[in-house]
Amino acid sequence: MRRAIALATGNVLSRGGGPFGAVVVRDGKIIATGTNLVTSTNDPTAHAEVVAIRAACKALGDFQLAGCVVYTSCEPCPMCLAALFWSRCDAIFYGNSAADAADAGFDDALLYEEVSRPLDQRRIPMTRLLADEAMESFDAWRTLPDRIDY
Amino acid sequence: MRRAIALATGNVLSRGGGPFGAVVVRDGKIIATGTNLVTSTNDPTAHAEVVAIRAACKALGDFQLAGCVVYTSCEPCPMCLAALFWSRCDAIFYGNSAADAADAGFDDALLYEEVSRPLDQRRIPMTRLLADEAMESFDAWRTLPDRIDY
Repeated sequence: MRRAIALATGNVLSRGGGPFGAVVVRDGKIIATGTNLVTSTNDPTAHAEVVAIRAACKALGDFQLAGCVVYTSCEPCPMCLAALFWSRCDAIFYGNSAADAADAGFDDALLYEEVSRPLDQRRIPMTRLLADEAMESFDAWRTLPDRIDY
Repeated sequence: MRRAIALATGNVLSRGGGPFGAVVVRDGKIIATGTNLVTSTNDPTAHAEVVAIRAACKALGDFQLAGCVVYTSCEPCPMCLAALFWSRCDAIFYGNSAADAADAGFDDALLYEEVSRPLDQRRIPMTRLLADEAMESFDAWRTLPDRIDY
């Protein structure tokens, strides 16, 4: 956790982006780290946890992080929490809370409300189109003989 | 939307990954597309919407997608919904629903429950550590004179 915090603070001072750092550990060894690179790389998905997950998967040559734990300097936003879920990591340790992040000007707490809200009550309007035609993609998936589930 | 659906189906047949495609549009023109590349690129964050957002931001040289709308072949999972929120796009159009995705074997609906649950009731254990020390990162952020908010 101290490494994640140091990465977060260093990232601010180096103008990498926001005050967030993350570390992926397996068997007591750091296999990857990440910091928030949103503004320096023009990538709104480049939160510390996402950057660390991508680096860890690259290092392991796998699309899952089973057996790994993730230390992040701040409670993951919903994007990062869901990314951690998809990564299948074993546990998450965090330092600052979503409320702390809100106090520092970040939308994490607001975003938890948004994701929990019914679809028709969200800030970004969501509209369903061509439901019948869209099903063809899932039909193709279901019938693919050599599909790789994830 | 038809383009997003065609990308999704094509992605299955080309073994890119899951049956998902997304298109980012500004002023009636497609500026970027994405498909699910989780298994082919060993990246659990490479969902169609995330791939499309990253490509669109790269094309625009910006970390936000204000003025853009996103068409996705399936209702975004919480990771992608939050990524779309962070991208500041104007609207989302989707084809298949999260329930359809669940029927096809994907955890999207489950993940909405997970993200909405109190922190201590989630499947992945979450533990807070070193809260006092972690605050140093936010203090550094607050006092940075030339910080770029996002």
